[in-house]
Amino acid sequence: MPVPDAPVTGAHPDQPAPPERPSRLDPAIVARLRRTPDGLVAAVVRQHDSGEVLMVAWMDDEALHRTLTTGRATYWSRSRREYWVKGATSGHHQYVRSVALDCDGDAVLVSVDQVGAACHTGQRTCFFTELPVIGEVIS
Amino acid sequence: MPVPDAPVTGAHPDQPAPPERPSRLDPAIVARLRRTPDGLVAAVVRQHDSGEVLMVAWMDDEALHRTLTTGRATYWSRSRREYWVKGATSGHHQYVRSVALDCDGDAVLVSVDQVGAACHTGQRTCFFTELPVIGEVIS
Repeated sequence: MPVPDAPVTGAHPDQPAPPERPSRLDPAIVARLRRTPDGLVAAVVRQHDSGEVLMVAWMDDEALHRTLTTGRATYWSRSRREYWVKGATSGHHQYVRSVALDCDGDAVLVSVDQVGAACHTGQRTCFFTELPVIGEVIS
Repeated sequence: MPVPDAPVTGAHPDQPAPPERPSRLDPAIVARLRRTPDGLVAAVVRQHDSGEVLMVAWMDDEALHRTLTTGRATYWSRSRREYWVKGATSGHHQYVRSVALDCDGDAVLVSVDQVGAACHTGQRTCFFTELPVIGEVIS
């Protein structure tokens, strides 16, 4: 069986019904999203000028709407099951400069101006745990 | 109600049972992952030297194991429900230089040397669709 090289676009077998939470997101964008079974897309957050990848969080349709219309990065907390505005309690605001959707609609790339640390541990980026790559292939 | 500023670590209310697909992933890493309801973590892929964010794909435990031990980026296709090795059919290989896990275990950052286009559309990056940010806040 050939191994596919790219995600297949179109209908997703696990695509759930539209999320139960009400959303004001532009229907043209709603139609392009391909969500996890719990109705979310991955939001990759990077510092707009350096390009550093800071964190990944999750957005439902309404969180994406709020991010696009308030200029403040807003996510859906999978554990607390509520919206959170980055920086609201920590002061580590994320001012949104641009948002891009990927080709198959399951992720957005959010370019921000990050105040202070992106990570709740106090580190600048959440990706500070290196995993061992033991089968490196040199290109 | 206070708005949380960061994902909560620890037990995830939606955390599923370990994935049904067999995996050889190091149990120490298995224990750190927090997966979507369908057993996946988000894999953010960037070009190792320029830092450009190329794509987001999905990994189950075994896909992460294969990525770490073969040096070739390997994903789980949500639509086809099978593993795919990037470049196997297109020649657009991803040679893995490093992999980092994020603080709450739901995403990995994969730094690669990307041959050719990362996107199946032929574009270098999958994030070529800009969404309108109409509420920009200047920091």
